[in-house]
Amino acid sequence: MKILVDITLKSEVLDPQGKAIQHALGALGFDGIDGVRQGKVIELDLAETDRAAAEITAQKMCEKLLANTVIENYTIRPAL
Amino acid sequence: MKILVDITLKSEVLDPQGKAIQHALGALGFDGIDGVRQGKVIELDLAETDRAAAEITAQKMCEKLLANTVIENYTIRPAL
Repeated sequence: MKILVDITLKSEVLDPQGKAIQHALGALGFDGIDGVRQGKVIELDLAETDRAAAEITAQKMCEKLLANTVIENYTIRPAL
Repeated sequence: MKILVDITLKSEVLDPQGKAIQHALGALGFDGIDGVRQGKVIELDLAETDRAAAEITAQKMCEKLLANTVIENYTIRPAL
C-alpha cells in the first residue's frame, strides 16, 4: 500500500526557500501572503497491505533516514 | 488560512531522488519497498479566510509559479 510522509522544517527553523517562494509570488502580483514554508513529501509504495503495520514501518524509516528530527517534523498519512 | 500544496513528479517522469531513497532504505535493512517517489509540499499561509477562495488562489499560484505542469502534478488541500 502507498503511504505518504510529509517532512517539514520545525517552525522555529528558518526556511529561506519558503521565503524565496513568498517573495516570488509577491513579485507576480499575489498579495495577502502571510508566510510560505517548503517541505518534502515522500511516497512509499510498500508491499505491506495492513495499514497500521505500514505506518509503523514508515515511522521507523522516518526516524532512521527520511527525517532529520532535530530540525524537521514528519507526519504519516495513507495515500488516497 | 493555511493551504497545503503537494507537488509530485508525474508517474512517467524518472525520479532519481526517490530511487536513491529506496536504495538507502534497502541498505538499512528495510525490505518490501516497491517504490519511492519524492515531491515537495508547500504550506501557504494566506490572509484569505474563505476556503474556496484560498484554494482558487493556491491553484493560480501553482499554475503560474509553484508547479511545472509539464512534468509535475499538484494537489491542494487545507491544512488540518
